[in-house]
Amino acid sequence: MGVKNVQSSKYYKYAHASLLCSILVNAFLSYNLFVGKKWSLSWSTSAAAEAEAVASISCSGHGRAYLDSVVVDGKPVCECNTCYNGPDCSSFIPGCPSDVNSGDPLFLEPFWMQNAANSAVVVTGWHRMSYQFNDHTITSQELEKSIRKLHSIAGNAVTGGRYIVFGTGSTQLLNAAVHALSVDNSSTPSKVAYEAQTEFFATEDYKFYGDTSLYKNKSDDSMNVIEFVTSPNNPDGKLKRAVLNGPSAKAIHDHAYYWPHFTAIPSPSDEELMIFTLSKLTGHAGLRFGWALIKDKAVYERMLTYTDDNTFGVSRDSQLRALKLLKVVLEGDGRSIFKYAYETLRMRWESLSQTISLSTRFTIQELAPRFCTFFETIRGPSPAYAWLRCEREEDKLCYNVLKSGGIIGRDGIQYGASSRYVRLSLIKSQDDFDQLLYYLNKLVLQEAVAVRGDI
Amino acid sequence: MGVKNVQSSKYYKYAHASLLCSILVNAFLSYNLFVGKKWSLSWSTSAAAEAEAVASISCSGHGRAYLDSVVVDGKPVCECNTCYNGPDCSSFIPGCPSDVNSGDPLFLEPFWMQNAANSAVVVTGWHRMSYQFNDHTITSQELEKSIRKLHSIAGNAVTGGRYIVFGTGSTQLLNAAVHALSVDNSSTPSKVAYEAQTEFFATEDYKFYGDTSLYKNKSDDSMNVIEFVTSPNNPDGKLKRAVLNGPSAKAIHDHAYYWPHFTAIPSPSDEELMIFTLSKLTGHAGLRFGWALIKDKAVYERMLTYTDDNTFGVSRDSQLRALKLLKVVLEGDGRSIFKYAYETLRMRWESLSQTISLSTRFTIQELAPRFCTFFETIRGPSPAYAWLRCEREEDKLCYNVLKSGGIIGRDGIQYGASSRYVRLSLIKSQDDFDQLLYYLNKLVLQEAVAVRGDI
Repeated sequence: MGVKNVQSSKYYKYAHASLLCSILVNAFLSYNLFVGKKWSLSWSTSAAAEAEAVASISCSGHGRAYLDSVVVDGKPVCECNTCYNGPDCSSFIPGCPSDVNSGDPLFLEPFWMQNAANSAVVVTGWHRMSYQFNDHTITSQELEKSIRKLHSIAGNAVTGGRYIVFGTGSTQLLNAAVHALSVDNSSTPSKVAYEAQTEFFATEDYKFYGDTSLYKNKSDDSMNVIEFVTSPNNPDGKLKRAVLNGPSAKAIHDHAYYWPHFTAIPSPSDEELMIFTLSKLTGHAGLRFGWALIKDKAVYERMLTYTDDNTFGVSRDSQLRALKLLKVVLEGDGRSIFKYAYETLRMRWESLSQTISLSTRFTIQELAPRFCTFFETIRGPSPAYAWLRCEREEDKLCYNVLKSGGIIGRDGIQYGASSRYVRLSLIKSQDDFDQLLYYLNKLVLQEAVAVRGDI
Repeated sequence: MGVKNVQSSKYYKYAHASLLCSILVNAFLSYNLFVGKKWSLSWSTSAAAEAEAVASISCSGHGRAYLDSVVVDGKPVCECNTCYNGPDCSSFIPGCPSDVNSGDPLFLEPFWMQNAANSAVVVTGWHRMSYQFNDHTITSQELEKSIRKLHSIAGNAVTGGRYIVFGTGSTQLLNAAVHALSVDNSSTPSKVAYEAQTEFFATEDYKFYGDTSLYKNKSDDSMNVIEFVTSPNNPDGKLKRAVLNGPSAKAIHDHAYYWPHFTAIPSPSDEELMIFTLSKLTGHAGLRFGWALIKDKAVYERMLTYTDDNTFGVSRDSQLRALKLLKVVLEGDGRSIFKYAYETLRMRWESLSQTISLSTRFTIQELAPRFCTFFETIRGPSPAYAWLRCEREEDKLCYNVLKSGGIIGRDGIQYGASSRYVRLSLIKSQDDFDQLLYYLNKLVLQEAVAVRGDI
């Protein structure tokens, strides 16, 4: 009995410990199931598990796998950053040039990875199958509300008394705006003047007539001119105003870069027709979502009709995801993405400037510090692009000079400038920027060596 | 001691039972966490819980709430079907007319609700932020593969030797196709002839010139004509062929309805340019996703350039979701959605035909049973629309006749037909169809009463 008692006591202790342990395990699991998730998941679990499994595929920090990546051996493969390859993107490709041609806004990808939990969206199989929302429109009311709130936080645009049209990216909205501003039944088409914006226009209502400088000093008020004002400007990041006036001059303000990421915000833009895009705000270029703020009701209606006839509005899936992303942007005081984006680009600009300052061969645009109403302080530049100039007499084809130095930029000619200029994108991935800096330092070092050689 | 022993024994039993119970609970929870989900979820749980919570909002089977529904008191509200209202859509609106105007394909919504688990998608915050896919295109390779597989299962189109272009809905693709087929630098624009298809065309390369019948007997081979061939036809569901021939005649085959849902498939379509849309295949009209199968490389490239310039391709989010939906469609033998859709529409057609057969005032189009290579049998009709004709001499304005009877259709005039015709949509929700049948039966009953009155 004594022994038994001891055994019993041992068992008692064991049982006690097991029970405690079990309770703790239960508590942990229950927490996960009912508190952590606040919901016992059912039909969504397999999709969630699939997404987490794909997200957990290791691509060495130089790539990522997506749910719709190409599948090899039943598993989505890593999609590697420009200069990396191998199954897990761990191999650096020797001699790989720095490709800083495109404005692919991947610099914001780490922000979204840090916000994995609050930025994920679960889309049900039956989500918004209809052509219309419940109010018989093709636009989400909640998304429109978020956009208005966003502008009031960023302080970059007046939304009061403005209509909003959504577009499948700002490209569609620029087309819609030109269409809407063109004069109907006019014997001559409207003229479209733009500064550094290559778009697609092929209708009978309007024609592309080149740079605004062609019109600046003309006083033909009867001519219908539509001016694109890209502010901050692409490629040089400077704030711009319309240069054409007169009763027949109309402006489309492309404000893709008018966010605290890229520029000081001196005051909210209060123009007649302003176009914004998620691509350069949250970095989701692939989502194809933009919006226009429009003062005039007739112009609003014509733009709406255009997007309606062209694509029957914006994908309801894109609208849902844009809403979720903007909810994350608006979380708390709604400032975290702006701080993240500004800090990232400011540091990139400073690194670049430091390298260029050692060079006499290359210069980049000067951008003065300026008071920003968003940060409530004078802040330095953080542009999306460097507008690089080859200063040497013989370096007339700057694009080629850089290319032979391992840097693929975009020829200044594409922006109506001379071939002495090249645009370098500073908003791609950190890998891309690191590569750019590596080759630029190398070029500048060659200068120094050459100079020493001269002595 | 004895007492103690008893207590101990009692406790032992209690502990034992507790432990067993606890183990079972653990097993249940662990199963849920690690087996049921095959993954211990982390960052996706809150999004999954949010989606399930919204999906569980009761709207009485006469509506549904979405993640992006209008939020009232912190909760998304129910979006009710046409004739229902109230916070949970349980109130029928007395005297509410049957709205069967639009081709909103909500008849497939129950299919997706039944496939909740396999059709859900979890989109990460960093999903495809780039403008491009990893192969530098703007289209998902996996999605293209799924589309080719789909056509081989449905047997409705030849995909071999065809290029594929994705579009933001078939609307964009129709525009792109007209653009691509129009002759460049021609002194006269191409003429666009169509049958019952209202679209938006306003460029200098092409003009809308009305019905094909205007051209049928002309022999002017030098005229560039683009013919729209909608087959099965909207509104009457009949299979169509191009009517214009000659070296300068080009056809765009709109095959939105060429699925076993709506028609017998006599053979795979082998045309030069065929356009399909997810809207009428899976019912996801709001997703804005369509595709074109194109034989000619130059036409393919021009269409690709058009979609590229117009919207920079299709939203990567829409492509991801389309891929997931097609995966469900292709599951197993890839026949379940076709069976579901056909059965639903066949039953609707039979109910409608039965009602109409009692009437002399109204007729609907005749569609003969036909051998279908997909179902490998002769099958009856299951069209998307009824093409109703008012037969009475005085019922010249058929739309008004139906409207005063509580049915809102679409006036035949919109399809280039006479106002004796009205299109009735049979692909909306079950509520919409039930309403249609209710009012139609009422109208037919009035006839019978009137006839008895005559006697």
